[in-house]
Amino acid sequence: MKIYTMEKITSRKNEYIRHIRLLCSDTQYRREKGLFVCDGMKLLREAVSFGAEISSVLWKEQAEELEGLKCEKQYSAPTELFDYVSPMKNSPGPVFAVKIPAEKSSQKLRNAIVLENLQDPGNVGTVIRTANAFNIDAVILTGNCADIYNPKTVRATMGAVFRQKLVVKELNELGDYLKENELPLYGAALSERAVDMRSVELKNAAVAVGSEGRGLSREILDICQREIIIPMNPDSESLNAAVAASVLMWEMSR
Amino acid sequence: MKIYTMEKITSRKNEYIRHIRLLCSDTQYRREKGLFVCDGMKLLREAVSFGAEISSVLWKEQAEELEGLKCEKQYSAPTELFDYVSPMKNSPGPVFAVKIPAEKSSQKLRNAIVLENLQDPGNVGTVIRTANAFNIDAVILTGNCADIYNPKTVRATMGAVFRQKLVVKELNELGDYLKENELPLYGAALSERAVDMRSVELKNAAVAVGSEGRGLSREILDICQREIIIPMNPDSESLNAAVAASVLMWEMSR
Repeated sequence: MKIYTMEKITSRKNEYIRHIRLLCSDTQYRREKGLFVCDGMKLLREAVSFGAEISSVLWKEQAEELEGLKCEKQYSAPTELFDYVSPMKNSPGPVFAVKIPAEKSSQKLRNAIVLENLQDPGNVGTVIRTANAFNIDAVILTGNCADIYNPKTVRATMGAVFRQKLVVKELNELGDYLKENELPLYGAALSERAVDMRSVELKNAAVAVGSEGRGLSREILDICQREIIIPMNPDSESLNAAVAASVLMWEMSR
Repeated sequence: MKIYTMEKITSRKNEYIRHIRLLCSDTQYRREKGLFVCDGMKLLREAVSFGAEISSVLWKEQAEELEGLKCEKQYSAPTELFDYVSPMKNSPGPVFAVKIPAEKSSQKLRNAIVLENLQDPGNVGTVIRTANAFNIDAVILTGNCADIYNPKTVRATMGAVFRQKLVVKELNELGDYLKENELPLYGAALSERAVDMRSVELKNAAVAVGSEGRGLSREILDICQREIIIPMNPDSESLNAAVAASVLMWEMSR
């Protein structure tokens, strides 16, 4: 195994420390640099095994060996400095920066889950993880969702961020994009109009899920062919958004 | 509407402040006092509408009116002191203490979800919320799960904690308890032995879900009649535990 030279960093003012902190906190900076930050050996293993392009690694105190890790820029920092950088509390490390992948092939989608205004990064990450498990071709984010490359989103994907096709669309582009893919759009809603999701053919469809508090916007409902509902106890007004999306994706793949 | 007198609290050393903080942080203290803490108007409304026994309310700065709220002990605290007490960051308040309900009727269960060693309070709370939505008769916690009455669990239930039958059992009591209820136990597992969950009759059954990292323990698998699996993409090793439990509960109620 090739041993890379490792730079030891000791100051909070170090340029690389500043760089990683900005990648963690600043969506715009992530897009400018084309990089995002992941935390922990599990994600590093996933990144290596998936062949993601790892641009740098910052170890906590000591580097660990990892077969297949090819990265010229490796750093280490003492615990206190590492904790200052890491997006997680008490992380055993490392943190590492990964290149944001170019959008994957434009092969026609067989199905997709659409998230509108899902602001919780844990929920967005969980949906990406479930989509990957249930063979959903794409997760499409529209409106004001948590950033895919927010470290909390990335963490909740448990590595699916490296494998899953992810698409960001403005609401006014969404209709055309789905038409190109010949996918009807169904909106999950608690309305009177909504029909039991089991009565609709979901195999080749896109299904939209909104925020827990407010559901889907008027604008997206206007481009939905139908509204569908997950049947449930009427005393219980709602499901967690990631759970609702997951049950819908299960039905799509069932 | 009756207006209750309100005590203004200004000191961190106040006995009531200490009491609420202990209810937030200390499982043992919660059991001794038979109380747990909830945060926010949404939960307060749910508690009132469900008829939960509210033992005291602490408002942030100013009380709000809430129809049907009957509670003699109402307090207010300035923002800084309130934030010191509240289990949530930047909560608009109030926090309130609710009596832990006596275990609900021993009517036979038609079905149940069993959680083993689920340590994340958000996941446990989300499962309780979904169980309520999908008409699952009981959520049974065994092993080392997050406490039902941890404020983070309570919050994730979104009020279902007031409505859902919740049972805590030692692993060595679980088999007998399920026998009394004439429920077979199926364990969600990723083993070779596990059969597709759709091939098993789940309507009148208990289904056990383990922690994400380690799955179900040997001990609980030994009392399972069968192991079942949620079919998924083989490259994607797992689902979030609350998502897995939710998809299983959907199939149980489907």
